[in-house]
Amino acid sequence: MLQCYILPMPIRLTPLEKRVAREFAALKERSGSHSPSPAMLKGIKGVSVTHDFCYLGNPYATEVFLKYFRRDFKDDGELRSIVAYYPSQNRALAKKLERVIAVPSEQIFVGNGATEIIQAVLSHFVQQKVLVPIPTFSPYLEFAKEGVQLVRHQLQKADEFRLNTDAFLAQVRKERPDTVVIINPNNPDGGYINPSVLRRLFGKLKHLATVIVDESFIHFTGKRIHSIAHFVSTYPNLVVIKSLSKDFGIAGLRLGYGVMSKERVSTLLARGYLWNVSGFGEYFLNLLSRKDFLKEYKRARERAVGERDRFFRLLSRVQGLKVYPSLANSFLIEIQSGGSAADLTVRLLVRHGIYVRECSDKVGLKGEFIRVACRTTEENSFFLAAIQRLFPQQF
Amino acid sequence: MLQCYILPMPIRLTPLEKRVAREFAALKERSGSHSPSPAMLKGIKGVSVTHDFCYLGNPYATEVFLKYFRRDFKDDGELRSIVAYYPSQNRALAKKLERVIAVPSEQIFVGNGATEIIQAVLSHFVQQKVLVPIPTFSPYLEFAKEGVQLVRHQLQKADEFRLNTDAFLAQVRKERPDTVVIINPNNPDGGYINPSVLRRLFGKLKHLATVIVDESFIHFTGKRIHSIAHFVSTYPNLVVIKSLSKDFGIAGLRLGYGVMSKERVSTLLARGYLWNVSGFGEYFLNLLSRKDFLKEYKRARERAVGERDRFFRLLSRVQGLKVYPSLANSFLIEIQSGGSAADLTVRLLVRHGIYVRECSDKVGLKGEFIRVACRTTEENSFFLAAIQRLFPQQF
Repeated sequence: MLQCYILPMPIRLTPLEKRVAREFAALKERSGSHSPSPAMLKGIKGVSVTHDFCYLGNPYATEVFLKYFRRDFKDDGELRSIVAYYPSQNRALAKKLERVIAVPSEQIFVGNGATEIIQAVLSHFVQQKVLVPIPTFSPYLEFAKEGVQLVRHQLQKADEFRLNTDAFLAQVRKERPDTVVIINPNNPDGGYINPSVLRRLFGKLKHLATVIVDESFIHFTGKRIHSIAHFVSTYPNLVVIKSLSKDFGIAGLRLGYGVMSKERVSTLLARGYLWNVSGFGEYFLNLLSRKDFLKEYKRARERAVGERDRFFRLLSRVQGLKVYPSLANSFLIEIQSGGSAADLTVRLLVRHGIYVRECSDKVGLKGEFIRVACRTTEENSFFLAAIQRLFPQQF
Repeated sequence: MLQCYILPMPIRLTPLEKRVAREFAALKERSGSHSPSPAMLKGIKGVSVTHDFCYLGNPYATEVFLKYFRRDFKDDGELRSIVAYYPSQNRALAKKLERVIAVPSEQIFVGNGATEIIQAVLSHFVQQKVLVPIPTFSPYLEFAKEGVQLVRHQLQKADEFRLNTDAFLAQVRKERPDTVVIINPNNPDGGYINPSVLRRLFGKLKHLATVIVDESFIHFTGKRIHSIAHFVSTYPNLVVIKSLSKDFGIAGLRLGYGVMSKERVSTLLARGYLWNVSGFGEYFLNLLSRKDFLKEYKRARERAVGERDRFFRLLSRVQGLKVYPSLANSFLIEIQSGGSAADLTVRLLVRHGIYVRECSDKVGLKGEFIRVACRTTEENSFFLAAIQRLFPQQF
């Protein structure tokens, strides 16, 4: 669907911006519920993404990984064995994660990115009805098997999209789903629920077949990480899903894990998932047992958390924008000056090479929203300078 | 299950070999229907795999890939973008394969290794009953969804495990499966069926819901490659599965594809498989459009085919062994001197660091069999020297 642009004053896209807007809208339409990749944008004349604020990954952590990668693959021997040979099977990989996430390896299912785990869990464990708070990460709305009823729990703008557990439980009582999903911190807003609140919630959700908690952004929450993966032993209906793409900045490796009852791990492995992680993915899992790597990663993580807080403070001062508080590494930003998210996205793209996530396709978001990733200090400052030139006078 | 060894004369394992045999048997038991990886064998004291004849991949092709990898990732920029960012989605990857395999991209499903495709196809398209010739690649016996009846079609040793299409069709008529599986060339024996024979067979299998043909070893068949992927347009019930691990020697990247009706591709993509190929996998798919790479690969492929034929000639001369003719890059070898496959495997491992695939767990193989991969000329000569010292006098 090509969108028509009714522009609120004083914004008027230039002819170039208008063309880019049309082409971008068409591209987005073809990409389903995920934004087109920067590579796909290369097809639009006049656009060159130099600052990708769409992609969510700790850039400091990527650098740590690259340093180890360069060092460890200096010789062809190591590289050859990673490329040519089959990686270890799922159970052997789970063993490598056992100490890192402090749960028994029998409870760990290693995945080819969190998306594979979401797909596996939804298609094997959801029975008839799943309740998903919205806005959310769209695969949770898309990957349930045929015949499953999807019920949405609207998170309220007035609550800054924080989960209201009372309202959530009321809908659980009313709708009687067998499965519920909670993303913590949530995507796209970064809203966070404390583990103590979650624990109380789990106590009241014991009768459900499955409670899915997606912790993919948990490393950004603060100085300490409070994962609830170990709750699986107490609440056997709990499934904790974790991407490793974001916190470690390695989306290209496709890596994640799920923590769930050992019976569920066995059920999944009986259906396949034999060699689902690549050799480079396994190399990364090996790094997680190395003290030197973990020490450097810790610094990269804390740097990202500190930068997220700084970026929030400065973004919040820009008039005409509402920045929702986030403990993830991105911000949901509402345009309150009357401009549209689509126009702002195109303007940032054309004038500054900045690519943000335009959120008009996010189910459950009413208003004009973009999602902006937190990058390095330098990149974030570049973004701030660009946005400060537009707001409040020009947009 | 620990196996007891009743040794035919004149073989008597040494105490070291006996211990290794016990530990290897235990390890194999834990690995299910796939052989333990060389890395897993490191746990056995006194064993060091220096020559892996278990793994099936063209070693010459691996070297071509490594050369390009080194060249293309000299700078951090390229490497960073592969590691940090999300790879392209499935449909965009399919587009990259369109010209390479000469079928429309809408008919291509790109997979995280052929294993993922086997898993996806078996769980989505098999209805109630599947007929699988044995011996076979074990996932075809394992990954059907619950409730599916598995019927085995025994390939005959007297036919050198070649598919007898009349016998196969007779069993189809008798058993009325909705799905049949054909691996061509077959694993573990390398038996090959001509495309013209297959086409006649497809004509008689039109009433089935699904005909799966696994072509993972097709690049080893000879000077020219006769893929049947394009038959999907004529026979919409056909699904052609192809691993890229073997022919290109890149098992660690996890890459394969399936060719099937576009409706089936859409069905699978509606269930997930969004970012199922890693950034390095996508890099490889990009290589497949480069003339220089294809030219070098062609040489590597022809070299492997030539070496396979040479290895066969020399192996066939060893008394006490029967080597089954193969158009794949491995040989099914029967020990006819009275020794056991398990003992031979252990002896090759302990004395020569050679690791072969012991086939006692292969369903449908009666007798003492090992499967030996075809490696480089040098490695194959090393293997020949080792086996010639054992046969016929010592084993």
